[in-house]
Amino acid sequence: MEPHATQQRPRLLVLGCGFAGFSLLRRLRLQAWDTTLLTPRNYFLFTPLLPSAVAGSVELRSILEPARRRLRHVRVIEGSAVSVDWSAREVTCRGAVGGEVFTLPWDHLVIAVGNTFADFGIPGVAEHTRKLYTVEEAQAIRRGLLEQLARAEVPGLTADQLRQRLTFVVIGGGPTGVEAAAEIHDLLEEELTQAYPELVPYAKVVLIEAQDRLLSGFDEALGTYTRRHFGREGIDVRTGAKVASIEPNAVQLAGGERIDCGLILWAAGNAPVPLIQTLGARCDGRGRLLADAFLRLPEHEEVFACGDCAAVGEPPLPATAQVAQQQGAYLAKALDDRRRGRTVAPFRFRAQGMLAYIGSGQALADLPLIKWSGRGAWFFWRSVYITKLVSPANKAKVLFDWIKAHLFGRDLSRF
Amino acid sequence: MEPHATQQRPRLLVLGCGFAGFSLLRRLRLQAWDTTLLTPRNYFLFTPLLPSAVAGSVELRSILEPARRRLRHVRVIEGSAVSVDWSAREVTCRGAVGGEVFTLPWDHLVIAVGNTFADFGIPGVAEHTRKLYTVEEAQAIRRGLLEQLARAEVPGLTADQLRQRLTFVVIGGGPTGVEAAAEIHDLLEEELTQAYPELVPYAKVVLIEAQDRLLSGFDEALGTYTRRHFGREGIDVRTGAKVASIEPNAVQLAGGERIDCGLILWAAGNAPVPLIQTLGARCDGRGRLLADAFLRLPEHEEVFACGDCAAVGEPPLPATAQVAQQQGAYLAKALDDRRRGRTVAPFRFRAQGMLAYIGSGQALADLPLIKWSGRGAWFFWRSVYITKLVSPANKAKVLFDWIKAHLFGRDLSRF
Repeated sequence: MEPHATQQRPRLLVLGCGFAGFSLLRRLRLQAWDTTLLTPRNYFLFTPLLPSAVAGSVELRSILEPARRRLRHVRVIEGSAVSVDWSAREVTCRGAVGGEVFTLPWDHLVIAVGNTFADFGIPGVAEHTRKLYTVEEAQAIRRGLLEQLARAEVPGLTADQLRQRLTFVVIGGGPTGVEAAAEIHDLLEEELTQAYPELVPYAKVVLIEAQDRLLSGFDEALGTYTRRHFGREGIDVRTGAKVASIEPNAVQLAGGERIDCGLILWAAGNAPVPLIQTLGARCDGRGRLLADAFLRLPEHEEVFACGDCAAVGEPPLPATAQVAQQQGAYLAKALDDRRRGRTVAPFRFRAQGMLAYIGSGQALADLPLIKWSGRGAWFFWRSVYITKLVSPANKAKVLFDWIKAHLFGRDLSRF
Repeated sequence: MEPHATQQRPRLLVLGCGFAGFSLLRRLRLQAWDTTLLTPRNYFLFTPLLPSAVAGSVELRSILEPARRRLRHVRVIEGSAVSVDWSAREVTCRGAVGGEVFTLPWDHLVIAVGNTFADFGIPGVAEHTRKLYTVEEAQAIRRGLLEQLARAEVPGLTADQLRQRLTFVVIGGGPTGVEAAAEIHDLLEEELTQAYPELVPYAKVVLIEAQDRLLSGFDEALGTYTRRHFGREGIDVRTGAKVASIEPNAVQLAGGERIDCGLILWAAGNAPVPLIQTLGARCDGRGRLLADAFLRLPEHEEVFACGDCAAVGEPPLPATAQVAQQQGAYLAKALDDRRRGRTVAPFRFRAQGMLAYIGSGQALADLPLIKWSGRGAWFFWRSVYITKLVSPANKAKVLFDWIKAHLFGRDLSRF
């Protein structure tokens, strides 16, 4: 890359290395752009396997892909955007480790910063529950589970104390909550009997959902199937149950019931990250950036939004990995086509179906042509995930993790 | 286990799950004892591979073995001993997670609590350096290395700032320091050129040793070989260099020189853990429990000390994994033999030689019959470690880690 070439190429700044940003950068003709990626972490995380990582079915390092290795010729800077200066075409940033403040200029800007949790104004959610968006959060939940096992080994506890420490509550009956509950239940079922047999009678998973059914985005029969399956497996499912408040080790339901527990996982809904509100751009009712059919912000020709932080379509597409991935891929082609003077077609989402693991070797597949549940769907779930994992390294590592867990059990080392 | 049997069996309490405690419990006839293991962590850690884990050549979960899975019929409690009541034969303990205080009774007590770092009175060592005894510390060093790479990507840094952030200092020229320096150098050499080529000119490893040679426990020719090898590889070795003080990001040498750096690893010497001083037992000059030839404390017939916290023999044996492992195995047999009324022979150490990895695919082997260095010794190093790893799961995981690192490189994801 000579400096001359750099000057001629438009500066493309991508904020975020999730499904949207990463799939954009993997497909872009990088030689045509002077590309910078600003990301708070230096890897792409395959979020659909995060619930598995919580229970140690796969290792965290197996489901992430270092950005620099995969995105040669992209300048990667680890930091977060603090604000955007539209007239100067600059983003003010903060370094991810040292907190240094610096600016990055752009000719084209792609906002793909994902989202964070929504607490719906319920007291205690922010402070006393764990969320599941990042590697660090998944690690903390895994450690948290094992810490409760350690705390249950302390001599002289009452049965009530044991039950409290070994009750794990998952709030939110969408795919993340269902998969997390299933994986934690698998962990307790398969490992506790081996390593902590005396604790088995006290351990329990509770799944709480405010709506009357689980997995409202899936076909209704699959939601019903999951509920029955969880019932058989001993997961305590509460649908139509509203959370009034969260305390350090208890969930207070609106009906008056209180569930004492050792760990609370909050998977009940998404909200925009703080940056979005500072932009002064138009948003939908849920605070997501309104983007047109070409994923552009209406006010700014050269600014694009995609992934979980964007509202695209009417009604807006859901905040899923699949939507984000397709938007990133579309945007790569759209940017390259514009640069070459070609006509750009509007974005169109192609629904490929939905999958969810529901524990004990069963999964759901809600596909355009077929609704499927059980063990066969689980093999399908695994083969799809192996296919979707972004690199040969990821695929090999996840496969090996599955073999390891099968042969040697999950690793219950607490750290 | 009926309660009746439990009452008849003597209560054996083992403090610590390192090489000494773990090898004892693996070999003991557990049906003859009512056995409790008190350990601050719920796994055995294969410490000789910790320096490799720092650089991501192996994963931490590959080199540890969950205690409960391996030690069936041992009651495992996660906590630390605070004090010992000799007359009541009780240990006061604190829970590892919740800090609950409880007591554990014993008829026979084995103290195998390992050791911690010695700062030799040098200011700043405790606060501003990283040590390498635990999984958490290894994780923090690995993260620390990657944090410095992230901080070096911030736009607009001067060459001096880059050099400071990318200088990694290891203090201590024993096996841990030498291996850590070698592994970190490998990481920089092999991965930086791929993923961060622009940072290569600024990155450096400095190894500081107060004595005039490296690896003073090894044959002198091997120490000399290592020094020359490190010189060729570009590791900046300073022997005969005394550290005067440590600042947050700088090492001040006694000669007046100051080394600005991004990370400081302290591997310069060991000291007893605080518990030992509270025992009121006789110690050697370095604060280790004086144990007789049968590993007993002279004042207490039924109390044994082994591993790094014990001084056995004249001169006392070094604090190595090999010594600890043999003492644990001896004690298992000695305890069982006494219980059966058999004569017990005193402990005898059988030196099996020493190994060290020195980077770039070379190792040292200081064996009773041969002194060996280079690539052949490295294959030997690897095969010995695979053999010594305690479980089939460990062996499979470490082997796979080596294959992974070879095929896909080390994982540079920062977390």
